[in-house]
Amino acid sequence: MGYQYLPCETLTKFCTDVFTKFHLAPNDANIIAEVILQSDLYGIESHGVQRLFRYFRALDQGTIDAAAKPETVFETPVSAVIDGHNAMGQLVGYRAMRLAIEKAKKSGICMVSVRNSNHYGIAGYYAKMACEEGLIGISSTNTNPMMVPTNGCVPLLGTNPIAFAIPAEPYPFLFDAATTAITRGKVEVYNKLGKALHEGWAVDADGEGATEASAVLGRIAHHENGGLLPLGGMSEESGGHKGYGYAMLCEFFAACLSLGTTSDCIGADGKAGVCHFFTAVDPSIFGDADAIRAHFERYLQTLRESAHKKGCKVYTHGEKEIAASQRILRDGVPVNDNTMAEFAEICKGCALDFAGYFGAYRVKENRDFGGNFY
Amino acid sequence: MGYQYLPCETLTKFCTDVFTKFHLAPNDANIIAEVILQSDLYGIESHGVQRLFRYFRALDQGTIDAAAKPETVFETPVSAVIDGHNAMGQLVGYRAMRLAIEKAKKSGICMVSVRNSNHYGIAGYYAKMACEEGLIGISSTNTNPMMVPTNGCVPLLGTNPIAFAIPAEPYPFLFDAATTAITRGKVEVYNKLGKALHEGWAVDADGEGATEASAVLGRIAHHENGGLLPLGGMSEESGGHKGYGYAMLCEFFAACLSLGTTSDCIGADGKAGVCHFFTAVDPSIFGDADAIRAHFERYLQTLRESAHKKGCKVYTHGEKEIAASQRILRDGVPVNDNTMAEFAEICKGCALDFAGYFGAYRVKENRDFGGNFY
Repeated sequence: MGYQYLPCETLTKFCTDVFTKFHLAPNDANIIAEVILQSDLYGIESHGVQRLFRYFRALDQGTIDAAAKPETVFETPVSAVIDGHNAMGQLVGYRAMRLAIEKAKKSGICMVSVRNSNHYGIAGYYAKMACEEGLIGISSTNTNPMMVPTNGCVPLLGTNPIAFAIPAEPYPFLFDAATTAITRGKVEVYNKLGKALHEGWAVDADGEGATEASAVLGRIAHHENGGLLPLGGMSEESGGHKGYGYAMLCEFFAACLSLGTTSDCIGADGKAGVCHFFTAVDPSIFGDADAIRAHFERYLQTLRESAHKKGCKVYTHGEKEIAASQRILRDGVPVNDNTMAEFAEICKGCALDFAGYFGAYRVKENRDFGGNFY
Repeated sequence: MGYQYLPCETLTKFCTDVFTKFHLAPNDANIIAEVILQSDLYGIESHGVQRLFRYFRALDQGTIDAAAKPETVFETPVSAVIDGHNAMGQLVGYRAMRLAIEKAKKSGICMVSVRNSNHYGIAGYYAKMACEEGLIGISSTNTNPMMVPTNGCVPLLGTNPIAFAIPAEPYPFLFDAATTAITRGKVEVYNKLGKALHEGWAVDADGEGATEASAVLGRIAHHENGGLLPLGGMSEESGGHKGYGYAMLCEFFAACLSLGTTSDCIGADGKAGVCHFFTAVDPSIFGDADAIRAHFERYLQTLRESAHKKGCKVYTHGEKEIAASQRILRDGVPVNDNTMAEFAEICKGCALDFAGYFGAYRVKENRDFGGNFY
């Protein structure tokens, strides 16, 4: 598949304009665009502009409510519960983390649990928001049901990513990972490459190991039994109960504390009902924040400089993402032909001038809308 | 190996008496005994009375300071830093979690970071302390260096267990898991059974996969390169960076926030310097705690009742531990002959009457002190 390398600014402008067309305030539209582009800059294509068409369609069909305003329904100096009222997930997430940051600056810590939201992009974006203000940030979200519990065959949990961001130089610690062994996007990659999935990644409808990527994707798409295994794989022997446990933390903190929708019920009534969780912590409630940071930085450096397997190197979390951002800002954001075709569709639907953003680019014939990773 | 099945009370009394012999206050000695026995009741032999001999030896040799008092060196209404001053880890952990609970009851949340402590037993004990008072509890500890970072060959992280406890009936959610793919205790089990380790569990001194249990244990014991892999296994492809990331959270929250000792430096100066982290959260800062609990209980029940692989069942975290406690309280705590022999040694060293606790039991000849799991 061919790729265009487009300036980040062009894509940010395009996304912002699309969301503005759905009567989102320009500032709100820009926030959503920034969350999306951050994913592309980190090299995580699945959650970047490749996903714009899905947001466009959801807004167009009204399954996401462009006019909704997130509402704080309960709060204390160290906590809040927000009802997203089915607004764009990025907007809900941004507001929730802003609230957590503000409260943490006053109270030292704040946890915010959110119900009735939508897909909010990469969990790491929100954790990084706190980190950029010198705070420790945590962000997590549940998702469509896709993960089976250990020994089970019904997908009752989401991929439930958990992200942490901790200030440090030259690389902040940025951890953002699904609690499944692999993401759906990776299954899609294996499917396209015609490769068999590894043992310990997925199960069939009877809960037995499954390695055929297309069958796994089919079951997820058709809401059938079977699904992805938790981080740690098939059994307790291999540690599968650990990934299952981390996924449960997401369900509790995001969906139970907010009295929201657990992953098993997401999508059941046509609305997403996705739940998120955010935490911000001011490190100075533990003493000298500079000394803490310096101590952490020394440890991170020890790790990065440590002896390694031949042909590899030891990374700390976030190091690769920062390197990717610098490279992609310089070289342009890679956008594949399928996504370009989707952009053309969006322009038609929104009465935007495709050529105004993307110049003389000609949409390829025989395009495959299934070619993107979700 | 033969097993005795002894009443929990007898073992609690014995442990308490041993610690009292080292001039710990009776109440403090009893707290340590309870932490140890809780592990046995959960069926986690490695952290139960099997470990008593190691504590005895450390107190006897002065590597743990029986007279030390943990000290709060920094605090706010939502946080504290405690210096354990090399006291018994269980005592430091208990005091730290009590402080977290008290502050959380007033402020809604409290995080406590602890430095200069020792091995504190099972992380789950302290999380459960909060849970028993209706709060959400979190507990984590770093350890001797044993885990290599992804791609690395130097053990710079500990097994770094993270535990969560969340109130629920009939089974509270109790999650307690090392962030390594497997624990050292499991490697010992495989070694005794003469079984090969699975791929993705350990590496040799060059960072290449290692499956021979005795070689892996030897490297750990001799502080050589190589070690256990993070949860998720060998590579980023298999998700190893995820377990590595969770282990890093432990290092940051326990060892960096307290300006304590990261796992790579534990044991370096003859003292342990182990660091812990505790959090207590009052669910009522998110609204109606009863409604939240009921919502969570319904979800847990949905999981437990869900369809499963042939011959298995879906458990929620803590279910097995509660069942084990009931069984072991009824049938007695299993204590193997090696441990009984160690008890006899301890009695000699402490001038305690072995028969007074264990009746006519005769210590087996040809005992193997290496027979226990650590």
